[in-house]
Amino acid sequence: MQNFTFSNPTKIIFGKAVVAKLAPEAAKAGKSALLVYGGGSIKKNGVYDVLTGALAKEGITITEHHGVKPNPVLSHVRAGIKKARESNCDIIIAAGGGSVIDEAKAIAAGVRFSGDVWDFFSGKAQIREALPLFTALTLPATGSEMNSGCVVTNEETAQKFSAMGPALFPRVSVLDPETTMTLPRAQVANGAVDSIAHLIEGYFTTKDADVEVTDEIVHALARSVIASTGRILKDPSDYNARASMMWSATLALNGLATCGYGGMNFINHAIEHALSALYDIAHGAGLAIVMPAWFRHHLETAGPARLEKFGAAVFGTKTAEEAITAFEDFFRKTGAPVRLSEAKIPAADIPRIAANAMGLIRMWGMKHEQPEIEKILNKAK
Amino acid sequence: MQNFTFSNPTKIIFGKAVVAKLAPEAAKAGKSALLVYGGGSIKKNGVYDVLTGALAKEGITITEHHGVKPNPVLSHVRAGIKKARESNCDIIIAAGGGSVIDEAKAIAAGVRFSGDVWDFFSGKAQIREALPLFTALTLPATGSEMNSGCVVTNEETAQKFSAMGPALFPRVSVLDPETTMTLPRAQVANGAVDSIAHLIEGYFTTKDADVEVTDEIVHALARSVIASTGRILKDPSDYNARASMMWSATLALNGLATCGYGGMNFINHAIEHALSALYDIAHGAGLAIVMPAWFRHHLETAGPARLEKFGAAVFGTKTAEEAITAFEDFFRKTGAPVRLSEAKIPAADIPRIAANAMGLIRMWGMKHEQPEIEKILNKAK
Repeated sequence: MQNFTFSNPTKIIFGKAVVAKLAPEAAKAGKSALLVYGGGSIKKNGVYDVLTGALAKEGITITEHHGVKPNPVLSHVRAGIKKARESNCDIIIAAGGGSVIDEAKAIAAGVRFSGDVWDFFSGKAQIREALPLFTALTLPATGSEMNSGCVVTNEETAQKFSAMGPALFPRVSVLDPETTMTLPRAQVANGAVDSIAHLIEGYFTTKDADVEVTDEIVHALARSVIASTGRILKDPSDYNARASMMWSATLALNGLATCGYGGMNFINHAIEHALSALYDIAHGAGLAIVMPAWFRHHLETAGPARLEKFGAAVFGTKTAEEAITAFEDFFRKTGAPVRLSEAKIPAADIPRIAANAMGLIRMWGMKHEQPEIEKILNKAK
Repeated sequence: MQNFTFSNPTKIIFGKAVVAKLAPEAAKAGKSALLVYGGGSIKKNGVYDVLTGALAKEGITITEHHGVKPNPVLSHVRAGIKKARESNCDIIIAAGGGSVIDEAKAIAAGVRFSGDVWDFFSGKAQIREALPLFTALTLPATGSEMNSGCVVTNEETAQKFSAMGPALFPRVSVLDPETTMTLPRAQVANGAVDSIAHLIEGYFTTKDADVEVTDEIVHALARSVIASTGRILKDPSDYNARASMMWSATLALNGLATCGYGGMNFINHAIEHALSALYDIAHGAGLAIVMPAWFRHHLETAGPARLEKFGAAVFGTKTAEEAITAFEDFFRKTGAPVRLSEAKIPAADIPRIAANAMGLIRMWGMKHEQPEIEKILNKAK
């Protein structure tokens, strides 16, 4: 077990009818909010009305910044920074899924920075401060509601890069599982796959395979995601399944699932970021394509031990091959694509995808070269 | 799944040679520390020298307050408050196990309070503020290093009561598993039993049995405690087992293991507090006596469902009876007593123990009467 630091100051308010509770929390930090949201689903599921009503009651003025894309783009982040500055916003409120929260984080950091916000993503600058951020989560998937990272795509350079910093932890996040009841089936699938991806990256790339407690936590959360997703697909109105899924997804990327693993990398994410930077594909769907291929590569290069352990604990499988098949079966069951061809991405594009992925791989200091990435992608044809 | 709030601001620095890292963290909050510790084990295991050296390097002056008892007593807490006031201490540093940290919390709250510190425990006053607290943990068991509660015994009234408040969260806790290598075997056992007790209280008294994610986390942490303890008993120098045990014990009572359970009670703790208030018995040993008896009572009154689920996931047992036996076997294996007689507590004292327990049961607002507590204790003869 390797040394680690765990520190997560985000306060979570979880359950039925908790959305309005965000307003008094936000009022402690400011009086002028930039309200960040996406394509308008929060107007259909009631979150918009409840939240804006509660904010008004606290005397908080609202500047709206909506239209965040599923993979948030730099130009829209810049527009949000401009808007927040013009309105003298002193807090940022995000209402939506991980993309909305990620864009809100980039804006929160950008407003307080004299340089260009992309500098945080390209590695030219470090995030020193940010406006206080509050979130109302409506899509369990990315864990952004309780971590200090964000991912933004630069449309000009087709780079989907990430930025991190303790200042980006949301102060408070409200998680109401009822707001997830109306999610389209594809988004349920993407969220499940994304959560699994967060759980497996550390587990399978750890420099230390003797971390009993964290292995157990990863197994526990993976089992919960898989069981809850199965229940949701069977009965979308199953509140307890929605609730377990929502909290599992948060815990999958709040720091808990990697404690003690020491050196690790986000190889599946790096490859997937290339897919969603280049194609109109959801992050979860891209991950469902990359992961089985990477597992096969992992088996060839690192041996069966970790796949066997994970498979036995989570799927009840015996061999590494059976574990990979079980992953694939689960992704298929959710309706996610598990091959490039199923997402209509031509195999001829593999060198281009791999070249794009290398940008992030170098940025993150990971030791992989383009031929290896192409080899992995060839297993996803 | 019931609504909940999760908020835990304590920063954990975990691993080999991390003790000295507490000093620069403490220096951010103050310059004059009350250093609280117990009977001197920190002088044998090197923690004292490392910590005082690092604090001196930061220019922090130290007032020593040692001799904390395994079940910390009110008179010693009061002495600590007096000392901290006389020395104008602006931070409290605890080095030791849960008892040391609990006493340090009571002192931290007491220094800032004009009334009597026992008012926090008797329910007469609420903790509004406390001196910043920093801890170096040397005994994995209570979770006090990452929660906002503390337990103190009033020797005059033989009441072992608790106090809580967000101000009591340690700012930073350093957890070095190497400092636990020299723990006597009985303390390893007590820590293991205490951690299991924290995990089972919520799980078995939940008002909501459909909380997939938290059930999985409880199973995971219990499996980790049991596996790690087994390894430690076999090879006390097994660092990775020590590390997994230490982090598991912290997570067992940092809020994570009860999320969504809603109404729950600490019945085993309430009964055990009576034992260690009245007899010279370690908290963990007392719990190992109470839990099997309470499980048998739980089976009679609540049915086998939760015992079956826990047993299957953690011990691989089928029936509730088998699960109870597996608990007992684990406690026995650690060397803990599992009957009152094994701890030389006479059965004739049961009414007196039950009467004492009723004090805490009423304080905590739990719905149990003395005949039920006696009935449980009779199963522990």
